[in-house]
Amino acid sequence: MQPTSTKLITRWSDAKPAQVEDELVVEEPLEIRVGQQSLIVVMRTPGHDFELAAGFLYTESLITSGDDIEIIAYCEEEDAETQPAGLSSWQNIVNVRLIEELDFETQSGWQRNFHANASCGLCGKMTIESVRQQVPPLNSGFRVNQDVFYKLNDQLRKAQSVFERTGGLHAAGLFNEAGELLIIREDIGRHNAVDKVIGQALLADLVPLDCHILMVSGRASFEIVQKALFARIPIIVAVSAASTLAVDLAKEGNLTLVGFMRGQSMAVYSCPERICHEM
Amino acid sequence: MQPTSTKLITRWSDAKPAQVEDELVVEEPLEIRVGQQSLIVVMRTPGHDFELAAGFLYTESLITSGDDIEIIAYCEEEDAETQPAGLSSWQNIVNVRLIEELDFETQSGWQRNFHANASCGLCGKMTIESVRQQVPPLNSGFRVNQDVFYKLNDQLRKAQSVFERTGGLHAAGLFNEAGELLIIREDIGRHNAVDKVIGQALLADLVPLDCHILMVSGRASFEIVQKALFARIPIIVAVSAASTLAVDLAKEGNLTLVGFMRGQSMAVYSCPERICHEM
Repeated sequence: MQPTSTKLITRWSDAKPAQVEDELVVEEPLEIRVGQQSLIVVMRTPGHDFELAAGFLYTESLITSGDDIEIIAYCEEEDAETQPAGLSSWQNIVNVRLIEELDFETQSGWQRNFHANASCGLCGKMTIESVRQQVPPLNSGFRVNQDVFYKLNDQLRKAQSVFERTGGLHAAGLFNEAGELLIIREDIGRHNAVDKVIGQALLADLVPLDCHILMVSGRASFEIVQKALFARIPIIVAVSAASTLAVDLAKEGNLTLVGFMRGQSMAVYSCPERICHEM
Repeated sequence: MQPTSTKLITRWSDAKPAQVEDELVVEEPLEIRVGQQSLIVVMRTPGHDFELAAGFLYTESLITSGDDIEIIAYCEEEDAETQPAGLSSWQNIVNVRLIEELDFETQSGWQRNFHANASCGLCGKMTIESVRQQVPPLNSGFRVNQDVFYKLNDQLRKAQSVFERTGGLHAAGLFNEAGELLIIREDIGRHNAVDKVIGQALLADLVPLDCHILMVSGRASFEIVQKALFARIPIIVAVSAASTLAVDLAKEGNLTLVGFMRGQSMAVYSCPERICHEM
């Protein structure tokens, strides 16, 4: 599946309508199954679906390493035929098989929530207790020169190929300490873009990402910070604003949270000591 | 609770750091309970929580009118004390009591999902079938002059009081056929802003909103279109892009979907016949 699709639309310019072809970003549901059991459906932009599934399981604390995954594959076609027409295809269902040694019962209260509270327990969470996962604070001595920050934005923007054409995608990028872009993913969902980046890093055996910077094209919310903490990323840079809860969690987790990254200006919400500069 | 909060941050301007006070948008979890049972937790900006709860239940097809609701109230303080410190307070839990006559068993497969599939069945949906609700297409003859569209954006932006200060909120606005702004709500979550608007309309006995326009400050995704269809809103205007699935659902539902609304330009993705103009 392609990340964009062409549709005939009516474009009004200066109060005059005209029929034109337009390139739109594709949004399709992805059902993630673990051991043949449905876990969640996310609305996502097709592409890098295995990374999305891996990243979701990891940043939701259901697995702790890439080694926990035995196989990730699209659903067999006959399984998918029971789906209603139009909404799904076999490429919209991903099966994850985990290694036998993994015991869900002991994992982050997942099974408990799943059965006892009749909740999925991870996606649309059902209780406030289940929202905040237990993640130990970072103790990374990672430091980055201020100059590195000033060039992140340009690199992310230049690499956002689909956004340029459609205006409809969020991006997340993973940078090393020299400010080099290692992975970029675009998705209609902010969280998905982050999960795809972290999932890619997980499958490439790059985690923990304790010498890396995560940049997001939009806002920094609580869940973005929580996902970064799971992957042990010490610095998040957002193009736009951060929320109060994102800042609170970043402070607790000893994570450097930067927002409004524009030109040589930025707002540092937590742990500014990771940013080196000449006095 | 206030929608914004002040925090001490480090602002870098022209490569120089300085400690300043900054106004951030508040993000807090809201647990929605129905009949004392947890249904979902949404990350939201505090304020208009009862409208959010009502709108969520309505646009997720759990209730069909405001009359289905008997009482909406914050959790009693003693109930809330079991919550972990820091993340929650009694103002982060809303209880909805529905009228006794309402039988959840017959409502949109909710109880079935909730028990049989051990899923919340609505929030983070667990199967692709559950994503698309059954909503009959609109048969509204509602038409609006093109001039009305050109003034929506300015009105929404002017009314976005918190966005102006924090840059961190989405907005949704409900307009009448003359283009007058009736309701505006801001929230860190795009869906929440829409649920708050529709919930307010529901509680004020304004639904169905079949002579109204819904405007959103960001993108138009599948779920925004689905929510509007439940409230029978015939026109959605988005400041930014629409996704393929949003356009498909809008066409099926006979809903006029407009994107990239800027000045006197707009992209009309479906049902352009609702927009009147001189030839």
